[in-house]
Amino acid sequence: MSIQSLVLMLALAPVGATASPRIVLAIHGGAGTLPRAETSAAREAGMRSDLERALEAGHAVIRKGGSALDAVTAAVVVLEDSPRFNAGRGAVLNAEGVAELDAAIMEGNTRRAGAVAGLTRVRNPILLARRVMEDSPHVMLIGAGAESFAESLGIALVDPSYFVTPFRRAELEAAKARERASGDAAIRRSPFHIGTVGAVALDRAGHLAAATSTGGRTNKRWGRVGDVPVIGAGTWADANCAVSATGWGEYFIRVGVAHAICARVALKGETVAQAAEVVLADVASLGGDGGVIVLDALGRATLPYNTAGMARGTIDADGRIEIRIWED
Amino acid sequence: MSIQSLVLMLALAPVGATASPRIVLAIHGGAGTLPRAETSAAREAGMRSDLERALEAGHAVIRKGGSALDAVTAAVVVLEDSPRFNAGRGAVLNAEGVAELDAAIMEGNTRRAGAVAGLTRVRNPILLARRVMEDSPHVMLIGAGAESFAESLGIALVDPSYFVTPFRRAELEAAKARERASGDAAIRRSPFHIGTVGAVALDRAGHLAAATSTGGRTNKRWGRVGDVPVIGAGTWADANCAVSATGWGEYFIRVGVAHAICARVALKGETVAQAAEVVLADVASLGGDGGVIVLDALGRATLPYNTAGMARGTIDADGRIEIRIWED
Repeated sequence: MSIQSLVLMLALAPVGATASPRIVLAIHGGAGTLPRAETSAAREAGMRSDLERALEAGHAVIRKGGSALDAVTAAVVVLEDSPRFNAGRGAVLNAEGVAELDAAIMEGNTRRAGAVAGLTRVRNPILLARRVMEDSPHVMLIGAGAESFAESLGIALVDPSYFVTPFRRAELEAAKARERASGDAAIRRSPFHIGTVGAVALDRAGHLAAATSTGGRTNKRWGRVGDVPVIGAGTWADANCAVSATGWGEYFIRVGVAHAICARVALKGETVAQAAEVVLADVASLGGDGGVIVLDALGRATLPYNTAGMARGTIDADGRIEIRIWED
Repeated sequence: MSIQSLVLMLALAPVGATASPRIVLAIHGGAGTLPRAETSAAREAGMRSDLERALEAGHAVIRKGGSALDAVTAAVVVLEDSPRFNAGRGAVLNAEGVAELDAAIMEGNTRRAGAVAGLTRVRNPILLARRVMEDSPHVMLIGAGAESFAESLGIALVDPSYFVTPFRRAELEAAKARERASGDAAIRRSPFHIGTVGAVALDRAGHLAAATSTGGRTNKRWGRVGDVPVIGAGTWADANCAVSATGWGEYFIRVGVAHAICARVALKGETVAQAAEVVLADVASLGGDGGVIVLDALGRATLPYNTAGMARGTIDADGRIEIRIWED
């Protein structure tokens, strides 16, 4: 090996790659426009507390030798049940005032996957996505059909009002007012708010998993589905790399964000940080924005975003937690 | 450059890459289990004639200087309107005896995309997918919401009976009988029949596009969606590579087939033939099968499959047509 290539290799080596603690779980509570100045201390504290509970729920699974799949499931259920994020209870409302929920889960070592879209009566969409993966011959089920599948498994459906919070109802009214004022273009350019949730985990067997859950975008119409339940766009896991994305879903689908990141890791040997940076720049070049959390099989995580903020956190093998919403 | 690397480069150069005629359109009418011995001469002749009409419809667009996007649209509409393929009229029936249709389209140079799933009343799903791409801020619309979007554009909806053919009704009855005889496992292992349709095209501006349309699988339940409307799984186009897939959709989603092929072309410099072979082998390693049609920006096409047959055809810049269903 020449001196030049040795120098190059050292320059490209991720800082602290071997020294860093092994991250076993990373989560997000959505990237988007959530200016710090407009966020109350109480709301911020509530989000941080929920993120911490989600990290601890997932870490408890890993610590006991459980699977990455169980860990991402546990973390996402906590965030779906919290009214503060755009998933499960507290999800944003569509143009009809109904929460219309999408979710997906993927297991890296087997590449099994499950996805659901357009749910209005399933309390924890991520649990149904997982049942699709484990208890059906299918990967993706949508709408009333997916809810019939849930019923066939004995999952009790909830009334759609379970998901609705006063905060999201006010947000929908504001969106409708903006639309009335500025016409159709408002749909295209309306800011999206922080809140989609997701998790990526690495278990002791070295297996990865990813899970994502969302209510999509406020005031959405026509059965709109974003990137979350599109395997390869908002959610992906393989043997080397797991991704959960959050952002302007249309752009994330058009770039195939989650698969594109893992493809760069597998085919070009990039680190997850390098790959995520290139792919988010690609999203930005088309006009989109958002963020991703990515974890590799060595426990190296990256959580980049190009929006005002992204609620996010990691926990390492020793249980050390880091939680951030803005740059801090 | 060393002699060794020169020799390696020459060995890897695609045979006849520059000498081959430039393919401007490739189409498929589905990969699957269609044993030649069980196919009547009349049915085979009908399929070949439809494939020829589809190739000519797309080629007419390219010849007049039209876009790859218009060419794939024209070709897929011909196959959707034919009762012989599993798309539009003549699509397979779900467990309720209804044709439940999915489609997607993508333009390579802009990476704009449109997808629809779970339609029961839209005559040409590919035309609605295109309207989603061009006339909505969204990429994917599903179910009744997608049909409301169609109505908002003035697209007349058809009665679901429009799609139903005696052939598909008999196929559904046979599937239900098999299921009754062998239990749930029948769903998992039931053979899928030839018929999903798709097209990839290259226009004079050097732009690529891909389109795919399907009724999914006979006797499907629970709002099942396969790979076709999952951008990156069954359908993908970028500046260098366009793919339309057909096969056991669940496996194609889990591999992210269409994006995976184009990622190998972009990141590893593989030819479309090399990339498609590796990715189809990956599908097979998980237990799935099917086929793809892939076209690059130099007009090099590959149409591999690992099923009993795949209805497929190409037309080159001079209008020369090749159509095959089995190995021939």
